[in-house]
Formats: sequence, structure tokens, C-alpha cells
Amino acid sequence: MELWFTEHQDENLRFSIKVKETLVVEKTPYQHLAILDSYQFGRVLVLDGILQTTEKDEFVYHEMIVHVPLFTHKNPKDVLIIGGGDGGSVREVLKHSSVERVVLAEIDEAVIRNSKKYLPTISSALDDPRVEIMIGDGIKYVNEHKNEFDVVIVDSTDPIGPAVGLFTSDFYRAVYECLREDGIIVAQTESPFIYGKLINKISKMFKEIYPITKAYIATVPTYPGSLWTFTMGSKKYDPEEVDINSIPRIQTKYYTPEIHKAAFVLPKFVKDIFDEV
Amino acid sequence: MELWFTEHQDENLRFSIKVKETLVVEKTPYQHLAILDSYQFGRVLVLDGILQTTEKDEFVYHEMIVHVPLFTHKNPKDVLIIGGGDGGSVREVLKHSSVERVVLAEIDEAVIRNSKKYLPTISSALDDPRVEIMIGDGIKYVNEHKNEFDVVIVDSTDPIGPAVGLFTSDFYRAVYECLREDGIIVAQTESPFIYGKLINKISKMFKEIYPITKAYIATVPTYPGSLWTFTMGSKKYDPEEVDINSIPRIQTKYYTPEIHKAAFVLPKFVKDIFDEV
Amino acid sequence: MELWFTEHQDENLRFSIKVKETLVVEKTPYQHLAILDSYQFGRVLVLDGILQTTEKDEFVYHEMIVHVPLFTHKNPKDVLIIGGGDGGSVREVLKHSSVERVVLAEIDEAVIRNSKKYLPTISSALDDPRVEIMIGDGIKYVNEHKNEFDVVIVDSTDPIGPAVGLFTSDFYRAVYECLREDGIIVAQTESPFIYGKLINKISKMFKEIYPITKAYIATVPTYPGSLWTFTMGSKKYDPEEVDINSIPRIQTKYYTPEIHKAAFVLPKFVKDIFDEV
Amino acid sequence: MELWFTEHQDENLRFSIKVKETLVVEKTPYQHLAILDSYQFGRVLVLDGILQTTEKDEFVYHEMIVHVPLFTHKNPKDVLIIGGGDGGSVREVLKHSSVERVVLAEIDEAVIRNSKKYLPTISSALDDPRVEIMIGDGIKYVNEHKNEFDVVIVDSTDPIGPAVGLFTSDFYRAVYECLREDGIIVAQTESPFIYGKLINKISKMFKEIYPITKAYIATVPTYPGSLWTFTMGSKKYDPEEVDINSIPRIQTKYYTPEIHKAAFVLPKFVKDIFDEV
Repeated sequence: MELWFTEHQDENLRFSIKVKETLVVEKTPYQHLAILDSYQFGRVLVLDGILQTTEKDEFVYHEMIVHVPLFTHKNPKDVLIIGGGDGGSVREVLKHSSVERVVLAEIDEAVIRNSKKYLPTISSALDDPRVEIMIGDGIKYVNEHKNEFDVVIVDSTDPIGPAVGLFTSDFYRAVYECLREDGIIVAQTESPFIYGKLINKISKMFKEIYPITKAYIATVPTYPGSLWTFTMGSKKYDPEEVDINSIPRIQTKYYTPEIHKAAFVLPKFVKDIFDEV
Repeated sequence: MELWFTEHQDENLRFSIKVKETLVVEKTPYQHLAILDSYQFGRVLVLDGILQTTEKDEFVYHEMIVHVPLFTHKNPKDVLIIGGGDGGSVREVLKHSSVERVVLAEIDEAVIRNSKKYLPTISSALDDPRVEIMIGDGIKYVNEHKNEFDVVIVDSTDPIGPAVGLFTSDFYRAVYECLREDGIIVAQTESPFIYGKLINKISKMFKEIYPITKAYIATVPTYPGSLWTFTMGSKKYDPEEVDINSIPRIQTKYYTPEIHKAAFVLPKFVKDIFDEV
Repeated sequence: MELWFTEHQDENLRFSIKVKETLVVEKTPYQHLAILDSYQFGRVLVLDGILQTTEKDEFVYHEMIVHVPLFTHKNPKDVLIIGGGDGGSVREVLKHSSVERVVLAEIDEAVIRNSKKYLPTISSALDDPRVEIMIGDGIKYVNEHKNEFDVVIVDSTDPIGPAVGLFTSDFYRAVYECLREDGIIVAQTESPFIYGKLINKISKMFKEIYPITKAYIATVPTYPGSLWTFTMGSKKYDPEEVDINSIPRIQTKYYTPEIHKAAFVLPKFVKDIFDEV
Repeated sequence: MELWFTEHQDENLRFSIKVKETLVVEKTPYQHLAILDSYQFGRVLVLDGILQTTEKDEFVYHEMIVHVPLFTHKNPKDVLIIGGGDGGSVREVLKHSSVERVVLAEIDEAVIRNSKKYLPTISSALDDPRVEIMIGDGIKYVNEHKNEFDVVIVDSTDPIGPAVGLFTSDFYRAVYECLREDGIIVAQTESPFIYGKLINKISKMFKEIYPITKAYIATVPTYPGSLWTFTMGSKKYDPEEVDINSIPRIQTKYYTPEIHKAAFVLPKFVKDIFDEV
């Protein structure tokens, strides 16, 4: 049977994967949620028609959004994840033995509930005792917690719909207050092939707030544009100054200490986007 | 009007771009050729149903397949390109002032003829006096020329159809003979997300022939898997030993001396593919 | 979410409907079965990738395959349906008060089981006491029953896969023996826009066996070619000689006594297909 | 190469045909025009993304919109076609030996120009000396000509875009004035599977203006819904009273005198749509 999920990556660009069946389709208070069983990528989570994560290539995104900031920080104990209800980022954070507490601030409980049920390899760590699940508005949570976290990870959906507020200067400032004096924020910031202007805007916002602002990249084939950027703001530690020989080897498929460094070397047109004043 | 070109990247995976019109559709003696005008990527060249190059993102592939080997070599004068009839690699090679002669060995004259007519920004350098166009079998050409080139670039289509012979040990050995004593070969070697086994096989072939074998990567959103590998065999120069401060700045959009180095840092699963014995 | 079921009606022709979710996907011993919830046509039954029936337009096919032969026969008591596991034909047959017994010979119990569960408006009559469900090979059943039925309805899938045997001369002869002396067979015989040769072949087979052979048409938008043919073989009654004033009005959406007659008037190219010797 | 034209027949319904190449793509002052070479249907004309006519099945529509009214009228001499710039209706009209003059009122000269160039089998009769081509607004033309035509054929695009005015009561009244005292109008009025409400509305408008109003049907597989309606208004002749034995046999593929009569027998749900007050 020819059953295809198509992501409209753009008005003129579509990415389609063949589907065996739908495992769950649900209209939540925040978005349309589906988990599909696909032939190419295993099970996939789709929110508002956009692929969020696939069993096959989620490791790229989750490893890179987590290990780069956590190995930049010398001793992360308290980590806050905004979004990320599938649990992939939590799973990676808990590979760091220094971590004592992970708060997952996810606005939509349906993402967590269904990921637990249908995406066990991704959500596996959500029941770990170090994890504190907070169903609610991540922005509100950040505003109400000061000087409490070592690393904040903005693991959001695209800058449309429920995640819009996570791409604003006000939010990034609130995160600054929420971080300890040597804290680090990292946010997923889309592809330069598609969201060049947004990346430049976010870069400017970060530079106004954080003494150290750097961008790094990874390649996620199932995301539109594939070349993915992460923007990091740091109060004290420079991610490129990390002594990679001191990084402990953990179980990964994409991240290595060498990749940690190389990821900050941007293709010229990407560097231009970040540097443009 | 909804007119879409769809690439079947795999039986279960499709990539579709909206098309304004077909500029040329031709059955050549070797393949089905089309040049389409698309909304998202400008004009695109399609051979046997597979996207070969697009005006919008061709710079990634062409810069990376050319500048990495040419800046690894100290003084490239004679360069051979197998395939590459669109002219993109020729254009990049001619940015190197040391180059005195580029031979383009393309089996299908229709690719050159139509690229000249419909893809002017890519084929612009094909009329340069340093360029020698040889319509015919690249393998035969290599076998008939010994000790003649500083760099050989295998700018082929996928390892099915006319390009199959370009992915064999016999061919790589013939190229060895075709190269001068400090010569370098680089070949496009597909995506590790899709062609892992092939990449491993090619890596083993190269290692048996060339004293220095290295792989490097770049991200081409319109290619299946997006994360693209290039395999380099070198008789003398190590691409990672290049003094990047000595690399002259040329006009590029992706390549930089820093990217030259970072491109050899492979994600763990890609490194594993290359290293597996 | 863009989730689409596509029927490849031909190598060069596709029909796609947007799907909310899959209700059941099952590999049966005979075929791939799916029931999908679609936006345009309600729930749809798909066998081996081909749309069999939709809640929205099934009435056309089921009314026309049933009422034309049953109102041609003066007093149908025993009716045999080959295939038709969704129950739509059974439902229509039971609208005829003369009918005492309907045998449904369906090879694949999964069609019946899932239709009962997910397609209640179509399968509603399957539990009627006059219905005798025979899970097994319809051809074998026909061969083992002689002179027993007034009307035999061949409600099959396309002439590929499990239904191939239902488009043979041997089968039509066996049905002749299975029918009483004034019996009638009707078979769905595809679209003249696509299956012209097959229709001609079947027409010839029928004419060799049945004294009266006629074809009639109806329009089913979701079937490939849309203009659908039914071929009738009759031992005694001529369907065009029916006194339409004597036909009792039953509850229908497509069939009327006037349509009964008009359906036998074929467009010229369809008539040519049937008449060609 | 997988190049597909897709018609969005509805938000949830798509019909796709594989295309060899585009023959012409043009933005006219009125609409987006394309002529494509398809595998399944030969050359096809597409206006504003909607299939208008295909070489393979145009005969159904053109024969039925023309021969039914022209054989209902006893002696048609002057025929006006509104729209129909592809020339298919003109070609059919000229098969009637009584016809002395056909006026083609087409608003968009690009349709005529390109049909002449790329659709020769359809536009073949446009150069006949009896044809008078009027490039301009059909509504204006009708308003300016009184008591001049025996048959007016409204061969329009769908009731969106430039053709909207052709589905109004004012226009149908103006046509009444434009017709001679025994004149006939016929209009294409879409599919009851999709445009039920529109068909009912048009039916009511016609009944207020014309003493005899009848609807008839034909099956056009490439049109959305496939079952196509034509609405006829007649001042004097009843199309169902025609003596079909007196109809001369002309060269056709769909129309026959018997089809002339049968086409007025509507499936129950279609009849209900027309009759509903």
C-alpha cells in the first residue's frame, strides 16, 4: 500500500516517507500530534505536520544539542530542557555523571505520554529519578527560577506555533537570569539554507546578552536544509577552549571530542550569517 | 500549476521540488537528461531521474571536491576531471592560479552541450583556453595516460548506470598510474546514511593503493542523506598537514582553510565506517 | 499532517486521498489489507494497495452490481456472491424480498472480520439470518454446487492476484452449471478506458456460454477510469426486456428502473469493445 | 524521470499524471496556461492548475456538449460557443452540415494560439471559413447580440476565476435574448459528486428562464468526480422528444443517437439534485 507522509518543508519543497501505519493521531490542546511507523526511519514523531524526531537519525540532533554544552561546562549539575518532550535530550543529559537533576519543561503532556508509549528507545530515561517533569509553559518556568541551572537547552519546535516565544530576546534574557554565574544556554536554531535571517537575528540577540556567543553545526538528513545550527550563549566557558583530551568517552554515535571542536568551524556562508552585524 | 519533480532517493523516501517548466528533456546514448527550472533551487540538472546539481546549492559540492585536494597539493598544474560535464568542478579548479591545464573527460556530450546552454553560472569556465574537453570513456582515458596529472577528480554520478566502473579497484589503480609521483585522487563517495557499505569498500580499496587515504565530508541538502563523503588518496601530501595559514583566500561560499581541516573530522558512525577493516 | 494514500492506477496515473489515520493494517494469507479513515471519502477499504470501496461512493457499485440482475430475474430466491467480503452487495441483495438465501463465498476472512468492525454501514447485513458466509475458494464452491442459484454475482478484485481465476472461461462455465435453468450471472468487468482488451475477451467468453449476454455501465469516481462495466450472462431473461413499470421502488441512491434500462446503452467506443469479434 | 502534474481536485483529493515535458508555460493576462506532454493522456491543456482537456479523452466532453443540443435543434445554422478556445467544440459543431457560422467567443487569445500550435487534433477546425473567432468577453458579446443564434454552448472553465460570470442568472437571461425563438443553450455544469449545490442552483435559474430545462450526463475520467453534468435550456425543442431514428450518423467515439436519449436518465441522487426546489 502506498501510504506516504509528506512534510512541506517549504511551499516548493517536499520530503516524503513511506508509512506502514499510524500508531497514534491526536489533536492536543497545543498541536496536532502523530506517531507513524515508517519504512525508512522507523517510528517518527510528527507535530503540526513537521517531523520532529525519527528513531533512525535522532541521535545526531540529541547528542549535539546536549554534549556540546555539557562538556563545555566543567561540572553541570542542574540542567533545564525547554521542550524536548520526546525524551531524547534527557537521555543524553543523563549520560553525564555530574548531573544531579534534569528538569523537562514541556508544554504538551501528550508528547511525553505518547513518546513513552510508542518511542521507547528515545524516551527511555524519562522515568529516571533524577528527572523532574514539569508540564507547562517553559517561558513562565524560566521567569520563576533564578540562578538555578548550569545548562539550559532550548529543544523547541520550529519558530511558528507554540514555540514562537522561545525565539525572542526577552526569553533569552530570562534564561540568563535562570542560569548560574557560569551557566550556558544552547538553542536549536534551524538551517542556514532556509532560515538565514532568523539565525542572524538570534545571533545578534545572544551577543547582546551573553559574553561568549558561538554557533555550531551538525547534519540531520530529515530536517529541512539538513545542515543544522545550534546557538550557544555562555557566561564563562568558551566551548572552543575545551581541552578535548579531558573529555571522557561516553557512548555516542555522532559526537566525539574532535567533533566538538570541528562543529564550531562554519562553512563560509554560515559564518557570514552569524557574523553579519 | 502543481508540477513536481520527485527523486526516489530510496524505495521509501522521496524528495520533491516544484517545477516551473522543463527547459530540455533528452534521451542521450547514455542516460535520460533533463534540465528543469525549479522554484526552490533555480535550474537543476537531472540524469536518469537523479538530481545532479542545482544552481542554489551546487557550490557546496563543487568547492569541496576541488579545493580540498588542490590546496593539499603544493603546486597543481595538470588536473583531470572524470565526469563533471556540468562544468562546476572546472570552474572551481580554474580559481587556482597554478593550474595550467584541466582535462574534462565526460562520456556524454549532451551533458556539456546542455549545461553550456541552460546552466551558464555553473558551466561558465568550460570555454576557458586552459580547458581540454575529451568526450569519451574516462576509464579508457586514464588507462592511456601515465604519470601526467597532479590531481584527478572523480566527479561521477551514483554507482549505478554509466558510472559503475568508476567505483572499482581497477579504476583506482589506473588513476594511481595516471598521477604524478606526488599526485592526489579525490572521489565523491555518497552518503554514509545510505551507502555505508560502499563507503567502507571504497575506503579499503584506496588504502591498498594509496599511502595516505583520508575521507572528508560536506553537507549537500539536495543529495540523498545530505551528509556527503569524499574519499582522497594521496601519494605524498597529507591533507590534514596543510598549513592553513598558507592557503590563499579565493572566492568561495562554503570552503575556507578552516573548513579544509574540520571536514576531515568525521562523526563517530562515519569514522567507524571508514575505519572498519 | 499531510498523510496521503496513493493508488497507482497505472504506471503513469495516480489517485491520492488525504488520510486521517489507519484503522487497521494487516497482512492476510491472501493480500495486504488496510482500512483508512480519509477526509474525502470516509472510511475506505484497500486491498493490495487498490481502493476497493469507500463509504462515500460504494452505493454506485453495490446497487448496480446487484439490482440490475435481481430485477431482471423474475423471482430470485438463492443468490451467490463470489468475493464481496465487505458486505455491500449482501446488503443490497437483501433489499429484495423474494430472496431467501444469500451465500457469500469470500476467500479471505480478514476482509469480513475487519469490514464488520470498521465499515458498519457497508457490512450491516452480514449478520442477517438469510446470509450464509462461506470462507474459502469461490471457484471450488461453484464447482461443487449445481443448479442451485438464481443469480451469481462476481464481486471480485482486479484481475491480478487472488482474483485471476475469476476471469476465466472455465469459471464462467462452472457458474453456468451452478445456476438454475433461468439463472443469471453478473461480473464486475473493469473500465473500458483501461481494460478494453480484457472486456472484449470476457464478452467473447460469455457469448459462447450464455444465450443472452449484455453489458451495462455505471460511473464510480474512485475506480480507475471511472466508467465501470458489468457483464451479464443470462439463460432466459433479457435485462432490457424488463417492464420497468413493474419494478418495485426500493431504497437506493443510484439505481432506478429508468437507470436499469439506460445503463445498457453504451457509449460508442464501449459498444465497439463489446461487439468486436 | 519522475515528473508529475498534480491536480488538487479538492483539498483532500489529488489526481496526478506523469509528464514527459512541458511544451509551453505562459502567464496570460487571464490565467496560468500550460500544455504538457503526458504519458497516459497525450498532450493536456492546463489552466490555472486545472486539467481542461486531454488528447485521449476530450472526445467525451466535446461530443456530448455539442451533439446533444445540435441534434435537438431541427436546423442549427448559427452557433455561439463561449469559452472553448481549444477548438474541440468547434470541431464537433462543424460536423453538422446545417451549420453556416460558428462564433467562438474566447476571452484569452493565448488559449487559441497555443492550442493551434500544440493541440492540432483538437484545434483542427479553427481555421475553417465558417468559424469567426472573437477574442473578448463572452458576456459582453452575448449582451450585444440579440436573436441571432440557434444554439449557444457555454464551454467554460470551473466556476472560479475568469468564468464566474458564466454561472449567473443575468448571463443565462442574456443568452435567452441572444437566442432565436427556437434556440437552445447548453452549459457544462460540473460533477454532482462535488458541485451538488451549484448544480441545483443552476437548475433553478434555468427553470425560471427556459420553458424546457433538462440535464444530461457523461463520464469524463480526468475531470474531478468523473460523472459530468450538462444543463440544457430550450425555448421550443425537447431533447428527449427527438426521433433518434432521424439523427444522421456522424463520426463519433462516444455519442450515438441512443446515448442522446440515455444521457438524460439520471442516477437517483443526481435527479434529486436537479429536481430539488
